[in-house]
Amino acid sequence: MSETWQLASWATGARGTDIPSDVRSEARRAILDYLGCAIGGSTHTAVDLVVRALGPFSGNATADVLGRRERFDPLHTALLNGVSSHVNDFDDITPDNYVHPSAPLASALFAYASANHVSGSEFVQAFVLGFEVESRIGSALFPSHYDMGWHITSTVGVFGAAVAIGKLIGLSRQQMVWAIGLAATQASGQREMFGSMAKAFHPGRAAQNGYAAASLARAGFTAGQRPLEGPRGFGAVMAKAFDLSAMTAGLNETWALRRNTYKPFPCVHVSHPTIEAAIRLHDELHVAPQLIRAVRLRVAPSVLELCGRGDIETASHSKLSISHCAAVALVRGRAGLREFTDSAVNDPVVKRIRECTSAESDVEIEDRQAHLHVELVDGRALDRFVDGPFGTLERPMTDQQLEQKLREQASTTLSDQQIDDLLTNCSRIDTLDDVGAVVKATVPRPDAHPIWR
Amino acid sequence: MSETWQLASWATGARGTDIPSDVRSEARRAILDYLGCAIGGSTHTAVDLVVRALGPFSGNATADVLGRRERFDPLHTALLNGVSSHVNDFDDITPDNYVHPSAPLASALFAYASANHVSGSEFVQAFVLGFEVESRIGSALFPSHYDMGWHITSTVGVFGAAVAIGKLIGLSRQQMVWAIGLAATQASGQREMFGSMAKAFHPGRAAQNGYAAASLARAGFTAGQRPLEGPRGFGAVMAKAFDLSAMTAGLNETWALRRNTYKPFPCVHVSHPTIEAAIRLHDELHVAPQLIRAVRLRVAPSVLELCGRGDIETASHSKLSISHCAAVALVRGRAGLREFTDSAVNDPVVKRIRECTSAESDVEIEDRQAHLHVELVDGRALDRFVDGPFGTLERPMTDQQLEQKLREQASTTLSDQQIDDLLTNCSRIDTLDDVGAVVKATVPRPDAHPIWR
Repeated sequence: MSETWQLASWATGARGTDIPSDVRSEARRAILDYLGCAIGGSTHTAVDLVVRALGPFSGNATADVLGRRERFDPLHTALLNGVSSHVNDFDDITPDNYVHPSAPLASALFAYASANHVSGSEFVQAFVLGFEVESRIGSALFPSHYDMGWHITSTVGVFGAAVAIGKLIGLSRQQMVWAIGLAATQASGQREMFGSMAKAFHPGRAAQNGYAAASLARAGFTAGQRPLEGPRGFGAVMAKAFDLSAMTAGLNETWALRRNTYKPFPCVHVSHPTIEAAIRLHDELHVAPQLIRAVRLRVAPSVLELCGRGDIETASHSKLSISHCAAVALVRGRAGLREFTDSAVNDPVVKRIRECTSAESDVEIEDRQAHLHVELVDGRALDRFVDGPFGTLERPMTDQQLEQKLREQASTTLSDQQIDDLLTNCSRIDTLDDVGAVVKATVPRPDAHPIWR
Repeated sequence: MSETWQLASWATGARGTDIPSDVRSEARRAILDYLGCAIGGSTHTAVDLVVRALGPFSGNATADVLGRRERFDPLHTALLNGVSSHVNDFDDITPDNYVHPSAPLASALFAYASANHVSGSEFVQAFVLGFEVESRIGSALFPSHYDMGWHITSTVGVFGAAVAIGKLIGLSRQQMVWAIGLAATQASGQREMFGSMAKAFHPGRAAQNGYAAASLARAGFTAGQRPLEGPRGFGAVMAKAFDLSAMTAGLNETWALRRNTYKPFPCVHVSHPTIEAAIRLHDELHVAPQLIRAVRLRVAPSVLELCGRGDIETASHSKLSISHCAAVALVRGRAGLREFTDSAVNDPVVKRIRECTSAESDVEIEDRQAHLHVELVDGRALDRFVDGPFGTLERPMTDQQLEQKLREQASTTLSDQQIDDLLTNCSRIDTLDDVGAVVKATVPRPDAHPIWR
């Protein structure tokens, strides 16, 4: 049986009881982290602009957008959730394949669950299945696919959304094959867009397109029978080298959710070791910024490829600059959402340190490592080396830290009471009668925060 | 100035008077041919299924779908027009790059013009500009891009739609760059889908996505600044080899419309020489099918790559089978829409000839050539060689033949009077005050054709 048919058989045949409890528990953590990112990003200008441009094309407003007061049809809602959840570069990542797996997947699921009755157990199962399928397809094509310039989060995220929605609407095996095919043939998103709003558009469109793929398949709209493995299919077209066996080996035994990670800092994950080194130095030595003469970084090659940008003028540029990451963390001892704003970019103290920071890549350094070397005006030199920063698989964020991360992101939009309700609902999501309650808990109340919008 | 900026400057700065009269005239022919294909395809099951699956998500129904009675929002209308216009494989093609240029482009334009006031001269100008941009991008990446497995009609069609709609809504140069970027990063469509409904979905989605790209850009939604030429951009990601200079060389001097062709037969263009050879043999010698023992074809390599399918069970398979093309044309002396139906596929006489037909590829044979060799039961052998069939640049369809092609496709849906009105409007489209009149002329009247649907 071809890989597409195996995955379709697996997803359509899966029972909730097939999912081990630790995987189910990790799904709850991923969903909670996702919701925080979606609410935190929901007030971003990029989301406002999509509402302005495409809102007028929305169908019946049956779904709530996470973190906002507007309602749209579920497909537009999926798009908007996707933009919100990725726009701050704060959402989860599977470091093995650089996929941000929850954004395209959960954005479609919450849009669907807002407009339709979905129980918590159905929701979590669909999430786990979608997560698994998109992760396996991503791992099969990584790293060639990513190196070619594809934004793997959207190109494989569309499969996650298609399979998850397809499971909820009860696709047959043949329909699931078509849904996977319609996902494959809509897969898109180029890394050339990094540093612009279009980056966050990618997982949004993937969520919307995956949802549409499942809807079309249910109606009987046909696609190719070998979309993943065929000679002109997803693998052949979108990667120079790929390993089809990774799509299906060990289904029901290995689970991609076990290798999911949550970001403590809202920027590319390979910059995190540098940030942690800078924060340690700040916290341990209290070096006044004016004493710093130069900062030299030795980092993994991926860091300069992803965060080597030099001309830093805006917030979205700053996330692509390892110099900014190091400088702002050295100056402020933290690297939260406020450290990647236009204001932080133009902070004269940060700017000076950023401009005296240089980075050199070293093939001996892994993605999880960074070496920070700071020269002071008095001639002293300070060093920090980080191997496996906070937020990686070895040092995962705790449940409490994830809740705190959500709280910080949601606090500009929601009242404390709303956040408490949301966290309670999240913690028991797989027992909820209707996941729509979670979505409702993210909608700002008109009276609570008059400053919002 | 980069290629993206050059194209954006050219399109935003263009005046109607820049377009030579022969190009304008060819645009009218392309639009007429497009309309016939869209109306002819509008009753196809694939279109019904998209209506059923995605119609419920439509926004305010401000636009008429060509050839149908339903109205949807303009984005869904663009999608549906795109599916209709390509679903019969009857739409125009630029043989230099295998792009079907009008389907994604005109599908967006007619959707926009149905919901908004657009004069004929604005419409034709936008059509010419979109046609030029998508053709140039296609030629820059062809053949590598197509050979990799990309359905070039949709992957470059999205640029045509974005630029054409962008021109109509008055994008600035920066906004047009963003629109091109948002088109690039949504480009999708894999040849693995050929033989399924998803093939026709491609230009539909391209029309819809290009339209959305222009709408987002107008709102200020940003994209990368070098989407075509950047190191992770459209060219680098989607082709192994490409020639950026083809995107911009000779703008305002060479015009892609001058090399556009219209199909006399509703199937892949490289099968046309074979079909013409078979029809000639049928018409000249009146060979009874039962006298045919074997049919041997010598064809260009592209024919077997595109139409080498063996297991022919459905109408959509039949278009990918050079054996079916030869057989049905030998038996019936024609190859119109009725020759590529389930009924034609299962016609026992056609089936027998198809099964005794073999094809061999020959690198000496060009796309425009085919050799047909028929062996009769009495031992005689008959041959026909075609070099440059009807419908190619050398032997283009006349205006009258294009009108007849539209008439045949529209006659199952529209009354003769409606068709006459439509042809009149088409012939003077660039002088119309409002192109919406053309769209209205394609909508079937409730009383005229009760057999419809």
